[in-house]
Formats: sequence, structure tokens, C-alpha cells
Amino acid sequence: MKAGILNITGYGGVELARILNRHTEFEITSVTGRSAAGENLSDIFPHLSGLNLTIKDQLDDDVDIVFSALPHAASAQKLKAHIDNGQKVIDFSADFRLDDPKEYESWYGTAHPLPNYLNTASYGLPELNRKSIKASSIVANPGCYPTASILALAPAMANSFITEDVIIDAKSGVSGAGRGLSLDTHFSELNESIKAYSVSGHRHMPEVIQEINKLNNDLKIKLTFMTHLIPITRGILVSVYAGINPLKLEGRSNNIDLIRAIYQEYYKNEKFVTVTNQPPTTKQTLGTNQCLIYPTIDTRNNRLIVIACIDNLVKGAAGQAVQNANILFGFPEETGLEELALYP
Amino acid sequence: MKAGILNITGYGGVELARILNRHTEFEITSVTGRSAAGENLSDIFPHLSGLNLTIKDQLDDDVDIVFSALPHAASAQKLKAHIDNGQKVIDFSADFRLDDPKEYESWYGTAHPLPNYLNTASYGLPELNRKSIKASSIVANPGCYPTASILALAPAMANSFITEDVIIDAKSGVSGAGRGLSLDTHFSELNESIKAYSVSGHRHMPEVIQEINKLNNDLKIKLTFMTHLIPITRGILVSVYAGINPLKLEGRSNNIDLIRAIYQEYYKNEKFVTVTNQPPTTKQTLGTNQCLIYPTIDTRNNRLIVIACIDNLVKGAAGQAVQNANILFGFPEETGLEELALYP
Amino acid sequence: MKAGILNITGYGGVELARILNRHTEFEITSVTGRSAAGENLSDIFPHLSGLNLTIKDQLDDDVDIVFSALPHAASAQKLKAHIDNGQKVIDFSADFRLDDPKEYESWYGTAHPLPNYLNTASYGLPELNRKSIKASSIVANPGCYPTASILALAPAMANSFITEDVIIDAKSGVSGAGRGLSLDTHFSELNESIKAYSVSGHRHMPEVIQEINKLNNDLKIKLTFMTHLIPITRGILVSVYAGINPLKLEGRSNNIDLIRAIYQEYYKNEKFVTVTNQPPTTKQTLGTNQCLIYPTIDTRNNRLIVIACIDNLVKGAAGQAVQNANILFGFPEETGLEELALYP
Amino acid sequence: MKAGILNITGYGGVELARILNRHTEFEITSVTGRSAAGENLSDIFPHLSGLNLTIKDQLDDDVDIVFSALPHAASAQKLKAHIDNGQKVIDFSADFRLDDPKEYESWYGTAHPLPNYLNTASYGLPELNRKSIKASSIVANPGCYPTASILALAPAMANSFITEDVIIDAKSGVSGAGRGLSLDTHFSELNESIKAYSVSGHRHMPEVIQEINKLNNDLKIKLTFMTHLIPITRGILVSVYAGINPLKLEGRSNNIDLIRAIYQEYYKNEKFVTVTNQPPTTKQTLGTNQCLIYPTIDTRNNRLIVIACIDNLVKGAAGQAVQNANILFGFPEETGLEELALYP
Repeated sequence: MKAGILNITGYGGVELARILNRHTEFEITSVTGRSAAGENLSDIFPHLSGLNLTIKDQLDDDVDIVFSALPHAASAQKLKAHIDNGQKVIDFSADFRLDDPKEYESWYGTAHPLPNYLNTASYGLPELNRKSIKASSIVANPGCYPTASILALAPAMANSFITEDVIIDAKSGVSGAGRGLSLDTHFSELNESIKAYSVSGHRHMPEVIQEINKLNNDLKIKLTFMTHLIPITRGILVSVYAGINPLKLEGRSNNIDLIRAIYQEYYKNEKFVTVTNQPPTTKQTLGTNQCLIYPTIDTRNNRLIVIACIDNLVKGAAGQAVQNANILFGFPEETGLEELALYP
Repeated sequence: MKAGILNITGYGGVELARILNRHTEFEITSVTGRSAAGENLSDIFPHLSGLNLTIKDQLDDDVDIVFSALPHAASAQKLKAHIDNGQKVIDFSADFRLDDPKEYESWYGTAHPLPNYLNTASYGLPELNRKSIKASSIVANPGCYPTASILALAPAMANSFITEDVIIDAKSGVSGAGRGLSLDTHFSELNESIKAYSVSGHRHMPEVIQEINKLNNDLKIKLTFMTHLIPITRGILVSVYAGINPLKLEGRSNNIDLIRAIYQEYYKNEKFVTVTNQPPTTKQTLGTNQCLIYPTIDTRNNRLIVIACIDNLVKGAAGQAVQNANILFGFPEETGLEELALYP
Repeated sequence: MKAGILNITGYGGVELARILNRHTEFEITSVTGRSAAGENLSDIFPHLSGLNLTIKDQLDDDVDIVFSALPHAASAQKLKAHIDNGQKVIDFSADFRLDDPKEYESWYGTAHPLPNYLNTASYGLPELNRKSIKASSIVANPGCYPTASILALAPAMANSFITEDVIIDAKSGVSGAGRGLSLDTHFSELNESIKAYSVSGHRHMPEVIQEINKLNNDLKIKLTFMTHLIPITRGILVSVYAGINPLKLEGRSNNIDLIRAIYQEYYKNEKFVTVTNQPPTTKQTLGTNQCLIYPTIDTRNNRLIVIACIDNLVKGAAGQAVQNANILFGFPEETGLEELALYP
Repeated sequence: MKAGILNITGYGGVELARILNRHTEFEITSVTGRSAAGENLSDIFPHLSGLNLTIKDQLDDDVDIVFSALPHAASAQKLKAHIDNGQKVIDFSADFRLDDPKEYESWYGTAHPLPNYLNTASYGLPELNRKSIKASSIVANPGCYPTASILALAPAMANSFITEDVIIDAKSGVSGAGRGLSLDTHFSELNESIKAYSVSGHRHMPEVIQEINKLNNDLKIKLTFMTHLIPITRGILVSVYAGINPLKLEGRSNNIDLIRAIYQEYYKNEKFVTVTNQPPTTKQTLGTNQCLIYPTIDTRNNRLIVIACIDNLVKGAAGQAVQNANILFGFPEETGLEELALYP
């Protein structure tokens, strides 16, 4: 299958190229960049010289699938022609994630470019939406924070044993902020420091609420979602706190074994979600499509705690995109994603 | 005044030496280490050669104040003679922090070495306990996490506008784990990674509960306290989440200006607590005795959010110890602590 | 082919497992550790749970190749039985690298365990010794520093255009120091610091001298070799300085184009050495078997400068071992080593 | 004394403010920035709120000393009025470092703005030029690399025991590149990587050659000078390699004790240079005005090796500027510079 990448020159695009390079079913045949048309990809990224790709203005017509690593709004605008052309598309941006275009406008500050296309898009979190992904031709690749957050909360929500009070405290490496320059990502400013950001509300929050609430008709979560920047390149760790409804845990709110069993059952067939026996670290996911999840209970206070880790550029972006592409074309989901973590 | 330091060879002890070196009123005259008696301090720490100190088995008798950077249990055992001798002592360990020796035993796994001395000790958080510190001769220097956590919560608790539901998600640099070797603090394991630890309960939690609850007779917090290790050397950032009681905020739970005013009023006379207009970063506290606090409200969900930052070795250990020593001897609290942050 | 790994629990062993996991021709069937016999590998390294391996005391008899990641001396002692048994072995340690057992003894402080086996071993740097590797059954996998250093110097030495005066200033990430604990690799000590170490002579120096001198009968280099520890996990960068013999550069000592052409010609058929147009960075090699080499001239002073980068655990250890194994068994050298760098 | 700072908003300026804040003789009374006139300094740097300074377009007329942290060319242009006005000036830029304006033009790509003022400027390395600094009213504060390099080489050059062949391999933290944004200093690009830069010649090289050659009429060094970027915020380590002239070492080229004695004698009265017994680390200088120097010999090859460390923003910039200011006004050189290293 021929794959095209829109805007390969960002971190998400480069990571996608790295993964597809070892994929047996997809070949990258055509790529664009935002400002480097005509250049060889290796002029910008010497480590990609083996791919032997030239950056173009437009993708070739014959690509079977289009991955877009463009920013929001620009992505939908560019994808329109490909969608209309009958090509399958996977969008790394937020453009097709939110069901409600008004919600999109309120968070992204611009009218949705293609509101009429929203109902044909699927939210590309395979562990929850495998069927709708397979049936769709527009896949909205989830945000990095939502991937970890939704996977961490889903078993509890689907099994109704939490209350509406949910707090997610998320910590992310810097690559999630992309390749664009800013004082926030200037080495000397960020290094050896921790900061909270987007404290009045991060754009990834509405995705989490939308998708989690679909899992339980009787519960609408009240989510506080806080994001922190950590001076590492890759990795997201989310710490999820929620009240427990003891009625749903055999009357016991301190039944750690039970909630662990629920989580293991929920993900028993998943290749890319592992329920761990010990609190995971982001390093254990480096370069892989794994989401590691550790559920436990604060038995003093009757609260669920879930720790989840991903590599934000793999399961949080390019790896999940490949997983979605595998679903769209009927390949085994793990094709091209067999890599073990780069450790240490 | 002559100052003695028990166990100067740990990170807390070295930092105390750095600070006292520029203190106009205290001079370090005598120091011990755990295993290096007879050596010159500069053999272990070349950058301290200017201090010209030899590590001894015992402190000289003539020191006016004893700072102990020994581990728990060992600290109280060693301090007993100094206390009995009428010397003022400031203890970096947990030995005199908890009012209840049973609570101590349950968290530290050993019977309290000096239970009869507990009632003469003060909890050395000057912003809350200035008077009792001045009146005491044993000062329990607070833990690093509790310092940031209690200062972040105190104005809300004292002003009764929160509910009992409190979650503290704390992130710490590695120096808090000390100079002892472990795989957890081995560079290659920790670098470029984030991890949660002590998930079933960190030893610093009971301190926080004990001291916060003293601030309000009508409210007992239900605290979930989670700690995370971040690959930086110094710095703690705590993110505090609590329910809001709107009755106490003029009926409005979204009154960010009001809670900020409450916080500013509460700390208006404090030299070492700054209520900030923007979310602070740990880098802004590097090397200083400052605690930076940013209170805000999640107006969608009626929850208080407070971000607080300190340098765990200064306001979280040695700097606070010097602040306490200044109180004990009647010096201005900021003596020797005038330093600006090392930036970047 | 069945592969066995002696001491998989060090960083070299774990990296080898990661690489072999995607190798189409070798399967890891048997592994030992130094102290964890009986444990499942995933108990120590959760991210390796997919390998489903149990650590044993001895390798199974039926392995076709033995990779040893044991320390020096212990490695040769353990490999003897496998060698005598006719199995091919690749040794990560220094035991079979030095031709002269007295040289070994002087640098490693112990008599060589198997001096009679030295003449049947090859020095496993494929770019220089492909034929002798293929003909041998004991491959001494080169040290990490020597790999980068020898590859950086070889074209100049083989083409006789340098003088005997050679200085190599090497900078390494911390993973090269292994998983054993020490104050030198304690996070807080090393982080945000640079240090020189082994200043009176690093053990990797004699390898470099031995192998480089084989390339030119008329020149014996006088090598100063200095090593520095850098607070990153992976990566080695060596900066090589050598006098130029202008007679061998068409009479011109400032002919940068010519020396670049010599380097490109020398490595034109190599998959794992790239002569770059710009100074390379270690990040461009992360997780890959590439050695990136940038030769230039200090035209003011008539000196050759060569910058070379590798990932110390891949081309400097496990990846090169796989490259050697591919040679031993007649597989294409790049089998299992097709990976692009993990960037950023 | 009243001090003014031109362009306080760069890293050099901020560091100067931090140091002067604890200086007993100088008070910062007036500051400018490059683009923030009218703003309070604390709006840009919250951690400097204690200074209570407003950024102005021009310094007040009444300042006794002007520190300029402006870039080259802009600095001399701005300083002219202050010099003409009879104020003492200390310039962080390169504008007054090179004796020959043609040399300046060839390295900085612009004609020198004030060539007629060069002969009244002193090169502000106090350990070598104390007298000329005191006699001058324009002090050219040395570059960060030259400070470490010259101090490392000076005793050998002055004592004539080296040959002309000198190689300096320098490693620097990122803060030396300043606060301006670039892809090179973007966190994700630089973190966990090592790179060589300015390989065809760094601008700091001519300073080193100029000043070193002044120390010995009979020897002109042939210097290769290479710079590397290391992912830490602060710190420079230089590794100096030079041939030894054994005639000057009592006929012995392996006399490590002798060269150490020469170095110690050379710096015996210096407060800010320490000849160490062990190879120093940059961490040992963090936040201090110290230069740590470790001389040794590669006895196999008859070469001098010197390792030197500084904090590039202190002894390499702001601290040295304060040391120079102390000299200009007759204060003890260590005034305001008594700080011990921030460790760990």
C-alpha cells in the first residue's frame, strides 16, 4: 500500500516515517512539508537519508492512505480533496475529534473547516472504537493526553464503579509541544524545571470528556484536567483520581484485587495495553506503541488511582495512527509496531 | 553563634553549609559525618574546601545550635544528649514532626526513640508556627513535600472555603532521595523518565494531615497524596485539588479574584512566600528559600487548584532550618537567605 | 538460528534482546543472568515481558551462537566450554580484543584466563575485518570508544596522510558505565555536570592503538586518549585531532574536499558508516547501528579533525554484535539492524 | 556605588543582577533592555521581583559604572557616550577584546565601531592583567571559553615548558548560547545529544591566541580550538593538550609533580583559581566565580593535559565582570563573590 504523509517535517511526521520504514505492508511514496518543498528530506533530517524522499507541494494522486500531521484547521482544509477523492485519511490534528463543531470552535478559536464531514469520522482509539474505525474513512487520531487518560479511565467508567468526581494530573515530555520555537521550549528555560501550563483548561480536555462519557449512560464525569511540562523529550504519565462507588465493588471500596481484575479483563485481548503489577515508568514505553496502566485504590479515602504511561509520539500519535491504518486495511493491528522499548 | 552540623555529608547537610557560609550571625564550628570521621570535608566535597572543616565523631560541646541531618531514629538518638545539655536543636528528620508516637511507629516502622520529648518540640514551619518555634528548643524541620503542600493549602483551610476532598499530586527532583545509591536514582534508569512512587502512601502524608487539620476545627481533610519522581536534581512542584464550599466565597465558586485576595492577605507579611500572578516554575526557586504559590479555580467543576513550587533542599530543608534558627535566636528571618534564584 | 545470551541483565544484554527481537534469522532461546537465575526476565525488566524468557544458570546446549555480555575475565571463563563445544561466540568484554596477553594483564589487572585461545579470535569491527571475522569462531566485539575512534581514523591511517601525533577527545553518555551502582552514576551527582575520567589512561586505548597501527606498516601513532562523562543516557562523540602529512594530500594540507573524498571512497560500500556533510550529533544515531563521520581540516594549523558519533549500546555493543553474527552465519549484514534513529 | 546594566534581559545580565544583589558596595540603580522599555523587570523575570527595577531606554546619568550585556557592535556603539562621559565601563561583548580591529572585522563580519578606543581598553582577566585593568576605564570582559582556556594554559606558557602544538577541546552548556531562540537550542533537538559546532573556527579562538602569546615572547602557539554543545544549562569544561618541552621540566617530560607545583605556584595568591588534586567537574563550580584547574601529563606521549572548569555565566561572564569592577574601584576582589557552589 502506498502511504502519503502531509507535513512530514514535524515530530509526528518524522516518527511516522520511522515506524512505516519497518512496516511490511505500507510504503511511504509521497510526502509534503510546510515550507521545504523541493528539498530532499535528508537535507533537513540527515538521519532519514535512507528514506530517499523529496518533499513536494502535493501528495501523489495514487496514495492509498493519507496521514496528516498538519496543525488543526490546516489539516481539514488540506484533507478535503483527499476525502472527496475516496482516499482513506488519518488526521493527527484535532479537526475530526470533537463531535460538536461548536465545541471545536470554542476550544480552537476558529470555525470548523468541514463541519459536514464530522459524522463520517471515527475517533481513532482502537481499544474502544475498533469497529467504527474499520467502517470509517476519516480517522481522527486521538491527542496524546486523551489516549493515556481515556485508556486509564475506561474500565472504571464502563464498569460503573467510580463517581463523577475525576481529576487527571498529566505530565508530559516536551516533544508534544512540537518543533516550533518558543521560550517555553528553549533548553535553558525548561531544563531542570517543572511547570504547570494551560491551567485554565487544556484543549485535550473536551476529547476526554466526550469519549469517556460515551462509555456509561448513567454517569457524566466532572473532570478537572491539569497538564505539566517535564524536561524530558518523550513520555506522558497521567495520574487519575476518582471517587469510588463501593456498591459496584462488592460493597468494598478497598478491593484492589477486584479492580485490578476488572482492568485485566477489560484489556485482556489488547496487544498495546498492559495492566502492570508495579507502577510503570514512561521509559518502559520509549519508542513503543504500549500503554502501561496501573490501577490501585487509596483505601484510606475510598478513591481510585490509576497511573498510565505512553510514548506521546508513538501510542500518543504516530504509532496509534499506524495501528488505525492497519485496522482500516485489515492488517493485524501490531504490524510494524512490534518494537520493544529503547532501554535505558 | 557557633553552629554544629550532625551528618554534614548528605545533601541536606552540604546545602546547610552552603547557606551558613554566607550567614552573618552563625559560624559552622563543628561537624560530623556518618562514616568519614577524621577526613577533611574537602576530601569528600572539593567545592567546600573554603570551609576548612574536619569531620569529627562528636560535635564540640560549645556549639550554640545543633542542626541534625541524620536519618530518622538515628537523629533523635544522637540529639538526646544535646537537648539534655540545653542546646537548641533543629532536626531535619521526621523524629519530632508527628505528635503521636504511634503514628510515627506505623509510618517509620520503629518505636519512637524519644516519645517523652515530643511535647516540647515545635513543627518548624515558620509561616504557621512562628510563636511556638520561638518558644521551643527542639524544632522539627518539616519534610520537603509537606512544606509546599501545607503552605499551598493553609489559606484555604484557615478560611474554610474548601471541602474535605483534597488531592495532592506532587512532583519532585531526585536530590530529595539523598546521596545513598539505589537503582531508582541510577542515572540511566531515571533520566528521561517519569515515575510515580510510594503509591500506597508516602511517609510525608501524615505530617500534612496533622498540620492542616490544626488550622480548622470544623474540617478534617480526606487527603490523597501521590508522589512522582522527575529527572531533575532540585525542585518540588505540588498540584493541589480541593472541592470548594461556595458559601464561604460570597456564594460564588468561580471567584478567582477573591481566592487570590485571600491568599495574598494570608501571606502578606511573609518574606518567603509569594502569591504569584502566573503559574510558577521550580526553576524560579532554585537555590532560594522561596515558596511560590499560584491559586486558581476550575470554574467548570467548582474546584480549587493550587500550584506551589519550592527548592526541596532550601525551603524544603536547609533554608527553612536556617529560617528556624534565625527565629530561635531572634535574628531577622531572612538573615543569610537573601539569595535570588540561580537562573537559568 | 538459536541464540543464547550470557548475562542478559546488563544494559548490553538487554539491548541485544531488543535488537534480536526483530531479527528474522535469530531467536533468543536461552539466557543467563548474574544473580537472578529462576526469575522471569519480565520481573526485572517489565518492558521485556513479550520475550517470555526465564533466566537460567546455564545456556541450553543447543544454541547455535553465544553472545556474552559478562564482564572481562568472567566472560572468557564462561565461554571456554562453549568454544570447546564448537559453538560460535561473540564476546562483548575485552577478553579477546588484545593480541598480547601481557598487554591485557597490564590494563585489566589480572592474568588472561585463556591466552591460548587468543590467536583464534578476530577483532569484530566488520568494516575493517570482515574476512577474519567470517573465518573465526571467537569474535571479540570492540569497545564502544574504539569503534568510533578506529572508524574515524582508519581512512586517514590507511591513506598515510596523517602524522604520528594523534589526540582523541571522547565524550560518552552514562549507559556505557553499565547498570552497577556508583556515586559517579548517581543521578544528582552526574546530572548537569561534565567530567573527565580515567585521565591517566582508559582501558580502551590499547585496542585503538593495536587496530589502527595494523592499517599502516610505516606509521605508529602516538595516541593521547581522553574520556569524558556527559549527562545523557546513550551516545558517544569522539573528536579526533591528528597532524597532516601534506605530501600525501597532493601537497596541500588544506584540501578538505580531497580528504572528504578519501573518506567517502573508503566507506562507499558500508551500510553502517556514513560520511556526513555536516558535523553529526549523537541523537542522529539513537537506537541505530550507524557510525556518522565528519572529516575536516584545521587549515590554519595543518591538522586533521574528525568528528564521529555512535550509539554506544548499538554500534558500540549489541548492534555490532548482531552485525558480526550476521557475518558469521552468512546473512546480509543489515539483517535486524534496519532501524532509523529515534528522533527527537 | 551606583551600577547600571545595559540589556539586563539576557542571561548574562540577569546573572549579574543576581550577583550584585548580594554585593555590599554596588547597587543596581538603572537598567535597560533591548525591547522591554517601560516594563517592570519582574514582569519578565518573576524571580527578580525583589529587585524592584523598571527597564528604561537609557541608563541614568549618575551611575558610577556601566556593565554592558549587549551583543557585539551594539555594545560599543552604546558604550561610547558613557566612556566619553568618563564613566567606567565593563563590556561583556567582544568589542574591546581584540587588539587589532582587522582581526575583529574578520571574525565578527563588521567594521569595528570604535577602533580609536581599543588602546585604552584592558583585557579583563584579573589573574593575568590585574594592573592594566585597574589602570583602564574600559574593561573587555573575556569570553567564557577564553577564560577557562587561558587560565588552563597560562602557567605552562609562562614557564615555557610546552611546544607550539596546542589543541583545546571545549565542552559547554547551553546557556552560553543565550536566550535567543534557535533550533539548536530547542529542547527536543538538543536534549540527550552531543554536537560539535563552529568546527571551522569559533570566534573565541583569536582571544585565546592573542592573550596566551603575550605570556611568552619566544613561543607562538598553533592552536586548534574546537567547541561542543552539551545538554546542560551551565558549565564549561576545557581539555587542553600540548606538547612538552622536556628541557624546561628538569629534563623529564613525565614529571607530573613538577608541573603541578608550577601551576600551584602560579596561582598561589588567586582566590578564584584552584589547582585541584582530582579532575574537577563543572558541577563543582555551579553559581561560583571559581576556575578549577587540573594539570597532568600523558607520560606515554610526552604531552601536557589540563582540564579546567568554570560556570560560564559567572567566571565566564557576570562574576568576572564583578571581579573586574571590584578591581576598578579598589574593593577586595572577592567582594560579592563569596558564594559556594550549588551542589548537587
